[in-house]
Amino acid sequence: MWQAMRRFPAALAVLLALTIAIAAPPPAQAVSAPDVPPPVHFTLDNGLEVVVIEDRRAPVVTQMLWYRVGSADDPVGLSGMAHYVEHLMFKATETRDEGEFDSILRAQGAVSNAFTSFDYTAYFQRLAADRLEIAMQLEAERMAGLRIDRSSWLTERDVILEERGQTLESHPNRVLSEQMRAALFRHHPYGIHPLGWRHEMELLDGDNAEEFYRRHYGPNNAVLILAGDIDAEAARAKAERHYGPVPANPNVATRARLAEPPQLAERRIILRDERVARPSVNRLYLAPARRAGDQREAAAMQVLAALLGGTRTSVLDRRLVHEDETALSVWAGYQGAALDHGTFSLGAVPAEGVTLAEAEAALDRVLEEFIETGVDAGQLERVQRQLRAWAIYELDDAQARARSIGAALTTGLGLDDALGWTEALLSVSEDEIMAAARTLERRASVTGWLQREEGEAG
Amino acid sequence: MWQAMRRFPAALAVLLALTIAIAAPPPAQAVSAPDVPPPVHFTLDNGLEVVVIEDRRAPVVTQMLWYRVGSADDPVGLSGMAHYVEHLMFKATETRDEGEFDSILRAQGAVSNAFTSFDYTAYFQRLAADRLEIAMQLEAERMAGLRIDRSSWLTERDVILEERGQTLESHPNRVLSEQMRAALFRHHPYGIHPLGWRHEMELLDGDNAEEFYRRHYGPNNAVLILAGDIDAEAARAKAERHYGPVPANPNVATRARLAEPPQLAERRIILRDERVARPSVNRLYLAPARRAGDQREAAAMQVLAALLGGTRTSVLDRRLVHEDETALSVWAGYQGAALDHGTFSLGAVPAEGVTLAEAEAALDRVLEEFIETGVDAGQLERVQRQLRAWAIYELDDAQARARSIGAALTTGLGLDDALGWTEALLSVSEDEIMAAARTLERRASVTGWLQREEGEAG
Repeated sequence: MWQAMRRFPAALAVLLALTIAIAAPPPAQAVSAPDVPPPVHFTLDNGLEVVVIEDRRAPVVTQMLWYRVGSADDPVGLSGMAHYVEHLMFKATETRDEGEFDSILRAQGAVSNAFTSFDYTAYFQRLAADRLEIAMQLEAERMAGLRIDRSSWLTERDVILEERGQTLESHPNRVLSEQMRAALFRHHPYGIHPLGWRHEMELLDGDNAEEFYRRHYGPNNAVLILAGDIDAEAARAKAERHYGPVPANPNVATRARLAEPPQLAERRIILRDERVARPSVNRLYLAPARRAGDQREAAAMQVLAALLGGTRTSVLDRRLVHEDETALSVWAGYQGAALDHGTFSLGAVPAEGVTLAEAEAALDRVLEEFIETGVDAGQLERVQRQLRAWAIYELDDAQARARSIGAALTTGLGLDDALGWTEALLSVSEDEIMAAARTLERRASVTGWLQREEGEAG
Repeated sequence: MWQAMRRFPAALAVLLALTIAIAAPPPAQAVSAPDVPPPVHFTLDNGLEVVVIEDRRAPVVTQMLWYRVGSADDPVGLSGMAHYVEHLMFKATETRDEGEFDSILRAQGAVSNAFTSFDYTAYFQRLAADRLEIAMQLEAERMAGLRIDRSSWLTERDVILEERGQTLESHPNRVLSEQMRAALFRHHPYGIHPLGWRHEMELLDGDNAEEFYRRHYGPNNAVLILAGDIDAEAARAKAERHYGPVPANPNVATRARLAEPPQLAERRIILRDERVARPSVNRLYLAPARRAGDQREAAAMQVLAALLGGTRTSVLDRRLVHEDETALSVWAGYQGAALDHGTFSLGAVPAEGVTLAEAEAALDRVLEEFIETGVDAGQLERVQRQLRAWAIYELDDAQARARSIGAALTTGLGLDDALGWTEALLSVSEDEIMAAARTLERRASVTGWLQREEGEAG
C-alpha cells in the first residue's frame, strides 16, 4: 500500500512500508475484546456512509473522512491529481481563509493529517472527545466548499514536487518500486505512483484541480468514521448536524479504470544507481484482491506471505538468513485491499559476496521447495497465533480499526468483510495456502534488481 | 514500423518487417534520375496538402491519401480505434452502399488497400492514369461522408479481432514485440500495438468510431499524394475538382499525447511459449526520431543500424554468424519516422547449443568492441554505396516515393526533410555514428527473450 502523505516524516513512511510486510489484519468478530461493541454503520440521506467505532477507554475521538477517489482515478495525463487535491483541501474554503483549518485544530491540540492511495483519499483528526464537533464542522465545510486561489495552488504544487523529490526520487529502492509497478501494470493506473509522474504533476493547476474536486468530492462519495469516545446515537446526531446539510454531488460517477491486458511475459527491471547502499532483489506478482463476500483466496495469500517472510521463523528467513546465510534480510508481503488488483511481493538483500542472481535463485529455490513440501503445521500455528494477537492488539486501537474499515469500505468491500477478515485469515486451510502459492506465476510478475552503479556483475 | 493492414497477407507482413531491418531510405536530391522531376507540393484552400510525384514512364498513377491520425491518437481506453476506422472507411458513405467502393475499383483493375501505423492512416489505389479520377472521387466521398451502419460496424469489429488473432497473437515473436514495446513505453501510446489491446477492441462500436472519424478526418488533416503519370498542373486541377468542395473540419485539433517519464531502469521481458520454434534475444532502445530541419542524429542511427546488421558483411553478421558461429541470424534496425520517439533494435537467433544468455552477452560484446574500435572505413563505404543504390532504386518506384514522402509529412517532417534524407545518410561522419552508438543506453532499453516453454534454462 503506497501512500502519499501531506506531511511526510521519514519515520512514518518507514512505518507504512513495514505495515505492508507484517500486514496487520483488521479485527474480527471471532476475536473480541469485552469493552468494544461492534461498529455501527448507517447512511445519511445525502449518501454519506457513517461508521461508528465506540471505544470509551480514553476521552478522545478520531474522525476519519474517506473519499472514494484515489490516484487510480486521476485524469489520464494528469497523474498526481488526487494527491494534489488532498493538499489543496488544507487551503481556503468559502468560509475560511488559508491557514485557519490548521490553526484552529492546532489550538485544540488535535493531531491532523491526510493520505492518498490508489483507491482513496482520507483525512483524519484525533482530538479530545468534547472538541470533536469543531473537527466535524471544518471537515464538512471543505466537503463541498473548497476555494482554490491562485496564490495557493501554485505554491502547493511546488510542495508536492518537492515531496516527490524527497520521498521518492532520492531513494533508489522506491524508484525501483515505481518502475516495477509501471512494468507490472502496463495499462491499469495502479502502474503509476500516487504522487504521479513528475512531468504530469507540473501540469496540475487550480483549474483542473477544481474540476477534479467538483467531480469526486461530496457526501455521496465518502465514508465518515468516528472512532473512540462516542456512541452511535450521539455520532448520528452530530453527523446529521454537520454533514446532513451538504447536498449530494450529482457529478459523482461510477469509477471506471483502464483494464490490464493479459499477463503473458515475465518482466525484469534493473536499476543501477550510485546511491545504492545495499543491492536487493525484489519480486512483484499480480495477485487477486480481497473481494466482497469472498475473501478466502486473499486470506490465503496473506497467510502465505506471513509464512514466507516477516518473522524469524518464516520460511525465507529461516532458510536464507539463518541457515544458508545467503541473505542479510528477506521479506514477503501481500496487498489485497484494492478495488481492482492485489499484489504479492518477495525480496532479499544478499549477504556480502552473494550476487543478486544467486540471491534470486535462492529465493526461487526456497519458494519451489515450499510448494513441494507444503506448510509446516507448527509454523502455521505460530502464524495464526500471531495473527490473533495482532487482531486483539488492533481491537485496542480505535484509530487502527478506523483505518482498516475505511480502507475496506473504499476498496469495494463491506463492513462485514472488514470485520470478517481475521476470521478468514484464521480459517485458511493448508490446501488453500498451497493453492495460493501455486498461483504466483512468473509470467504475471516483475523482478527488480537494485544495483550499485558500475558495481557488481549481479 | 508496425502497421495494421486492412488485408493482411502473411507475405506482406514479412515484407514490412524486413523493411525495418534494411531500412530503405527515400530518395535525395543528391541522387537524381534524369526522367524524374522534383515533387511539387501545394495546399488547397480547405487545408489539404497535395504532393505530386511525376513519373511518366508507365501510364499508371498511385493515389495515396494520408491522414495525420494513427493509433497513438486512439482515445485512451479505446485502443485500436484508428485501425478500426480504417476498416470502416471501406463501408458505406452518404452516396454509396457498402461494397461499392471496392467493386468500382476492382472493375477498373485498381489495386487498393490501406494501413494504419502509430502516427498515420493511409489509403491508396494504383490504377491506369486515365481512371485516376474515379479513385479520387471515391476517396473524396469518404473524406467527410462516411456512413457507419449498425450492420457494418459489428461485423468489421469481428474482422479486426480476427486480424489480431491471426497476425499477432498466433506469433509468439510478435507477442514478445508487443510486450517489449509496452515495457519500453510505459505511458506514451507508442507502447500499444496499432491493432489495440483485445479487451479494448471489444469496446469499439459504431458510435465511438463515428466520433473519432468526425474528430480526425477532413482535408485539413490529410496529405494527398499523386504519383506517376500525371503532371502538377493536371494534378492540381483534379485535386481542386474532387477534394476542393470538402469543407475543412473544425474539430481537428493539435495532436496531444501522453509524455513518457524518464527512462531510469533497464527492462527485460521473458516470453515462454510452446509454439516457439527458434528462441531469440531481442533488444529495443528508445532512440531519437527524425526531426524537421535536423535529421543528422537520426541519419547516424540509420547508418549505424546498417553497419551493425542486415548484410553479410555487417558487424554482427560477420562476428556472430560467420566467425563465432554463435548465432544463426542477427539483425539491427532503426525506426526514426515518428512524431514523438524513435526506436533502435538489435537481435539474434542463437545457434544450436548456444543459450540466450550467451547470445545476448555476445551481442553486447560485439557492440562494445564496435564502440571501442570505431567504424571500419571500408565497411562504411560499402554501406554508403548500398544506401545510394537503394535511393536510386526507389527513385524508379513512384509508389515507394509516395510512401516515404507520406510517412514523412505525417510524422512532423517537411518535404525537404523527406527529399534530403538520403543526402543526410550519405554525409554522416564516423564521429556521428560513434556518437549515435554511445547514446544506446541500457537504462532506456528493453531486452526480450523468446523461449520455448519449459525448455532451455536461458
